[in-house]
Amino acid sequence: MAKELTVAIVGATGAVGTQMKEQLLKRNFPIKHIKFLASARSAGTEVEFGGKTYTIEEATPEAFEGVDVALFSAGGSVSAKLAPEAAKRGAVVIDNTSHFRMDPNVPLVVPEVNREDLAKHNGIIANPNCSTIQMVVALEPIREQFGLKNVIVSTYQAVSGSGVSAIEELREQSAEWEAGKNVEAKILPVKSDKKHYPIARNVIPQIDVFTDNGFTYEEMKMINETKKIMHMPDLPVAATCVRVPVVSGHSESVYIEVEKEASVQEIFDVLRNAPGIVLQDDISTQDYPMPLFVEGEDPVYVGRIRQDLSNKKGFHLWIVSDNLLKGAALNSIQIAESMLEDNLL
Amino acid sequence: MAKELTVAIVGATGAVGTQMKEQLLKRNFPIKHIKFLASARSAGTEVEFGGKTYTIEEATPEAFEGVDVALFSAGGSVSAKLAPEAAKRGAVVIDNTSHFRMDPNVPLVVPEVNREDLAKHNGIIANPNCSTIQMVVALEPIREQFGLKNVIVSTYQAVSGSGVSAIEELREQSAEWEAGKNVEAKILPVKSDKKHYPIARNVIPQIDVFTDNGFTYEEMKMINETKKIMHMPDLPVAATCVRVPVVSGHSESVYIEVEKEASVQEIFDVLRNAPGIVLQDDISTQDYPMPLFVEGEDPVYVGRIRQDLSNKKGFHLWIVSDNLLKGAALNSIQIAESMLEDNLL
Repeated sequence: MAKELTVAIVGATGAVGTQMKEQLLKRNFPIKHIKFLASARSAGTEVEFGGKTYTIEEATPEAFEGVDVALFSAGGSVSAKLAPEAAKRGAVVIDNTSHFRMDPNVPLVVPEVNREDLAKHNGIIANPNCSTIQMVVALEPIREQFGLKNVIVSTYQAVSGSGVSAIEELREQSAEWEAGKNVEAKILPVKSDKKHYPIARNVIPQIDVFTDNGFTYEEMKMINETKKIMHMPDLPVAATCVRVPVVSGHSESVYIEVEKEASVQEIFDVLRNAPGIVLQDDISTQDYPMPLFVEGEDPVYVGRIRQDLSNKKGFHLWIVSDNLLKGAALNSIQIAESMLEDNLL
Repeated sequence: MAKELTVAIVGATGAVGTQMKEQLLKRNFPIKHIKFLASARSAGTEVEFGGKTYTIEEATPEAFEGVDVALFSAGGSVSAKLAPEAAKRGAVVIDNTSHFRMDPNVPLVVPEVNREDLAKHNGIIANPNCSTIQMVVALEPIREQFGLKNVIVSTYQAVSGSGVSAIEELREQSAEWEAGKNVEAKILPVKSDKKHYPIARNVIPQIDVFTDNGFTYEEMKMINETKKIMHMPDLPVAATCVRVPVVSGHSESVYIEVEKEASVQEIFDVLRNAPGIVLQDDISTQDYPMPLFVEGEDPVYVGRIRQDLSNKKGFHLWIVSDNLLKGAALNSIQIAESMLEDNLL
């Protein structure tokens, strides 16, 4: 990969944007030139990258001239407005918001699962929802070997999925609780929604706002994105998404039914050899994944694998990954790396 | 209920025992005389009850002479040894440990579900596991109306289920985390198990020790106890039990399949009129149960009820209750009250 690229980051100061910068450096992404873009309000702010200081420029359509890859993570409305402008100017947009994910003209990609979809892009690639990514990374190798006919997931999602202000809110509420003060809630479950509830010492069964069918948008993202990424439009998928007082690292209790009979040992073997996965499952040593221990780690960790006691083709899995890394920033950079390797950039 | 009873509490100083005392007072249980029993080591300690001070006596077999109801919550080995001795002396034992729960000669009772089983007692009644109780209270009225053919549950369980020392551990770890110190773990997931993990800022997919089939005892309790209480030995039940950093209040994400077609509105109607349940489900006002708000409350709260998008007979429920109350102490006292009303005491 001698080629070097001009990279733009839109939303570099957010929880995901910060990780994007780190991933670019850590993975030695071949950068010729990098620029940082934001709204007029944030333009002029300084940002550090690789020991140098950069001034954030205003994200105008023209700012994308000459950009090869534009990494967006500044909210759906920013992507809606500017991603097509960037694409029009020849940049490949890798968008971390939900805005384009279900657009049939936009590939929604987890490289371990559907890297081949990258070739079909029209200037914009969507990065899936954090909770979806880690689940499909674990399910795809099982599907390849044994088929897949049902998925039911309950999530235990970290506050960092709601951004830096939600992490701060958890810290403040914890301190208030320690001090015996009244705990105030302003951000979670959804900053723009009507009511807010404390997350310290609590779990909140709402992530994103509600849709008319009673599911939240987060739940519908998991349902619809899983089908799209896995190319299984008719796969039954159900999700219940819950916020827990964890800083980073989403956990998922997943029930699946496979098509062909399988044993736990066979599932172990499949996952042990699958890309991006660490099998962490040894009950004799109480070894299983936990969010506190995956923070800052790249892989998707899978454990607690059990065959259902009433259904031989039913399996229970416990899937944990850092939602800011494989769930967001890392997957975005892996998309760019895959496109480079596949001569799509 | 003019009858007044002699009550013994074994394990009055634990998390559940403390709630048992409060429930007896709050519900005006007809007490003629009360005595507090514990191991020789704790005998002599003083305990408050209803404004009076009592001295804890040693729990010898003879201490149960003249006792009408003995409430046990001092660990399985204490119950194993002393519950039969108490029963032999004419006391009815209501045992909060898991020791006798699956004994075919011991009724396992949630009064809202299988009160009729109380009549079959042989001196010992078992109080089910906390996470089981709140689930069957919610499932029974649905089963009555629509049948039940499958249950898959993922839990979000509070630390108080592991006792006072686990609550203290969460508090200490939170303070250590706030202070930037290393967080030490000594109690959770299971005090007697080999390894301990922090619960602050974490979730732990292990409650109780592991069984050979890969499920934990807690998961097997939910599976086996649900079948026994509901009189459905062949009901497929699957459980994944997870500890979360919540003080009190267990939450459960439950997927069920019913026999007859039903609508969400019909499930609402059934639950609204069911005993012991508060239906808390209005997405227009973000109204759903959360553990922080059920602490100290008697009912089982149910919300987030959704029809599965791929299976008309599939429904998702979110069930929350105070694990020390309906999950333990309250259910024990309700068993005693039911027995009084049914002339079994």
